[in-house]
Amino acid sequence: MSAFSGNLRIDLAALAENYRLLDRLSAEGCETAAAVKADAYGTGAGPAAKALYEAGCRTFFVATPEEGVRLRGDLSGPAMIAILHGYAPEDEKHFARSRLTPVLNSLEQIRAYASDSKPGHAKPAILHFDTGMNRLGLGAAEVESLSKNKTLLEGLKIEMIMSHFISAEERQNPHNEEQAKRFTKIAQDYPGVRRSLCNSSAIFGDKGWHGDLTRPGMALYGLNPTPEKKNPMRRVVSLDAPVLQIKTARLGETAGYNATYRFDKETRLAIVGVGYADGLLRTLGNKAVLYWRGHALPIRGRVSMDLIICDLSSVPESQIPGPGDRLEVLGENQDADALAKAAGTIGYEILTSLGQRYKRIYVP
Amino acid sequence: MSAFSGNLRIDLAALAENYRLLDRLSAEGCETAAAVKADAYGTGAGPAAKALYEAGCRTFFVATPEEGVRLRGDLSGPAMIAILHGYAPEDEKHFARSRLTPVLNSLEQIRAYASDSKPGHAKPAILHFDTGMNRLGLGAAEVESLSKNKTLLEGLKIEMIMSHFISAEERQNPHNEEQAKRFTKIAQDYPGVRRSLCNSSAIFGDKGWHGDLTRPGMALYGLNPTPEKKNPMRRVVSLDAPVLQIKTARLGETAGYNATYRFDKETRLAIVGVGYADGLLRTLGNKAVLYWRGHALPIRGRVSMDLIICDLSSVPESQIPGPGDRLEVLGENQDADALAKAAGTIGYEILTSLGQRYKRIYVP
Repeated sequence: MSAFSGNLRIDLAALAENYRLLDRLSAEGCETAAAVKADAYGTGAGPAAKALYEAGCRTFFVATPEEGVRLRGDLSGPAMIAILHGYAPEDEKHFARSRLTPVLNSLEQIRAYASDSKPGHAKPAILHFDTGMNRLGLGAAEVESLSKNKTLLEGLKIEMIMSHFISAEERQNPHNEEQAKRFTKIAQDYPGVRRSLCNSSAIFGDKGWHGDLTRPGMALYGLNPTPEKKNPMRRVVSLDAPVLQIKTARLGETAGYNATYRFDKETRLAIVGVGYADGLLRTLGNKAVLYWRGHALPIRGRVSMDLIICDLSSVPESQIPGPGDRLEVLGENQDADALAKAAGTIGYEILTSLGQRYKRIYVP
Repeated sequence: MSAFSGNLRIDLAALAENYRLLDRLSAEGCETAAAVKADAYGTGAGPAAKALYEAGCRTFFVATPEEGVRLRGDLSGPAMIAILHGYAPEDEKHFARSRLTPVLNSLEQIRAYASDSKPGHAKPAILHFDTGMNRLGLGAAEVESLSKNKTLLEGLKIEMIMSHFISAEERQNPHNEEQAKRFTKIAQDYPGVRRSLCNSSAIFGDKGWHGDLTRPGMALYGLNPTPEKKNPMRRVVSLDAPVLQIKTARLGETAGYNATYRFDKETRLAIVGVGYADGLLRTLGNKAVLYWRGHALPIRGRVSMDLIICDLSSVPESQIPGPGDRLEVLGENQDADALAKAAGTIGYEILTSLGQRYKRIYVP
C-alpha cells in the first residue's frame, strides 16, 4: 500500500463483543445468528465470520449461494449457512457441495427444492413468510395453500420458520405488533419448529418476539439499532484518508467541479485522497465534515471521484495538517450513522459502499 | 455463478470504438490518453486498459500508485502510466519498479521527487497547474515561485504540463475560456513541453484547447460528454438483475422498509435480486425504473441492501416475467446517465458504485 491509501480499520474484538452483547440481550434459550451478507455489510465476510464463529455464532445468513460457498470456505467448523434469496435448481450443486440451507420464499422454490429429495434424506430448509414487507417470502395466499397442502413439504426438514419486520427500529410503530401477530398465527401450523423474527433493532423490542433465533446484522457492525437512544454497540469500522496537499483559496474563488462553493475569505484547504469511487457518496458534497485532532473540517464543493476538498478554518495555524497526515472519515468523532445522516441515507449504505482501494486492517 | 447473480456486461469493442472516436475528434497531432482510475470507472481496469492499448492508447492516468502498479502488470507493451495523486517518498519503490510517472501537484512533491535524481538520469514527471478548481495542482503562488526558481526542476524531465476544467460539460460556461487562458499563460514558461488540458467533455469544446494530449475518461465508458446533446458515444456497460419471486400486493398494502409506498390497487410485483450493496443507490427508491421487454417497471418502496420491489402493472399478463428472468437495470432502454438522473447524481457515480457480486462478462 502507499502513502495515498485510506486506512479502513475493522475492529474484530468490537464485532465479537457486539455479538456477545446481542446474545446476552436475547431471551433465554434463544440462539443468536449473524447476517453476513454483502461482504458482512462491507466489513469483509471472511474475517468477520471467523471472529463471529469464535464468539460462538453457529448460524449465518447471506443473500446468495455464491456468498454461501465462499463463507463455507471461511469457516473451520460446523455451522448453518442460510441463503436468503432462496433456491433455484441451477444452483443445486452449490447447495449440495457447500451444505447451504435455502430460505424458501415461495411455493415454487419449495417445489423445486423438494423435487429431488430422496427417501430417508430429508433436505434442510427454512421457510420465510412475508408478514407485511411485500418483498421475499410466502404471501398470505401461499401461506394458506401450504397450510392446506403440507405434502408439499415432504422430503424437507424444516429447520426454522422466519419473517422480517419492516419498521423494527421504530419501537412504537404498530407494524411491529401486527407483523408479530401474523407470524405467531402462521407458526401455529408449524408446531415444534424453531421460529425467527428479529433483526438487530427487534432484539431491543419485545422479548416475546425473540423466538428461537435472532439474526442481527447492522448492530454487529456497530450501527445503532436504537436510533432514538444512545448507541449501545461498539464501533467496528474506522476510516481515515490521506492529505495530499495543503493550499490556500483566495476570497471569491470556488471549490471543485461546477464551482458549487464560493470562499468568502482566504481559506486554507486540505486536498484529501478519498472520493465517491471509495464510497464517499456524492450527496456528502457541501454537507459533511472530516475530522483532524477533533476539529471538524467541512467538505467544500462537490465530492470528486478520487478527491475531496476540506476547509481548515477551524484548525489553529500551528496544528494545520500536512501531506501524509490522515483525516478521520469514520472514527471517534463521527460514526457511520452520523456520516449517513449528512448524506441523507442510513449507516448501512455507508458501510456497504466502502470501496476497494482502502488498505484494510483487521484488528484482532 | 448462480441463478441469483446480476450480469454486468462490459462491451470492450464499444470501449475501443469510443477511444477511436475521441481520437479522431482530437486536433491534428494530438495524442489521446485514457483515464482508467477507480478500476476504469468501475468497468475493470485490467480488461479495459488492455482493450484501450489494443486500440492504440499509450498513456494512462490513474489516481494512486497502487492502481499504477496493477496497471503496469496488465499492460504487455510500453506505455506511460501517470499517477494523478502525485508523489510521496514512501512510494519511491512503486514509482521506480513499475516505471510510474507522477503528476506533481505542489512544490513539496516536486522537491521530494527531484531530491534523489542522479546526474544523467532525469526522472520523468508531469506538472499539474490548478487553474480554478482549488483541488490538486500548483496554485497561483506556487506557479510564480516555480517560475522564478526553475532550478527546482533540475534532475527532472518534464514530460507534460496539465490542468483540469471545472465545468467542461457546460459548453458556454465562461470558466472554460478563463481556465484555458490561465493555462496558456503558464505554458509560456515551459516552451517545447507538451500540454494537456482536456477531459472528455472538453474534447467536444474548442479545438484550440486540445494541445498535445487529451485524457478522456467518462466518454470512453459510454457516458455522455455533451449532456445538452444526443450522446455520441457507444454504450459500454449493461446490467441485468434476476427476478427471484413474483407476487401480488393487495390494495392498501405497502412495499418494503418503513412502508414508504402504498398500493392503491392490487398490484403484481417482481422481487429482484439487486440492492444498494450492489450499487443501486438508495436514492433510487420510489424514483427509478427497471425494464422488461421494453416495459418500464417502477421501483416501489425503498431499495434494500440486496433486493428491490418492481411494479409489473405495465406488463400484459401474458408477458409477466418469472423467477430466473432478468430485468434490465442498464441497457438499451436506460443508460447510466438516465439512471443517475433518477438518483439525483451523475453517471460516473453509477459506474464507480457497481458492486462486486455481479457476474462480470467482458464482451470482446
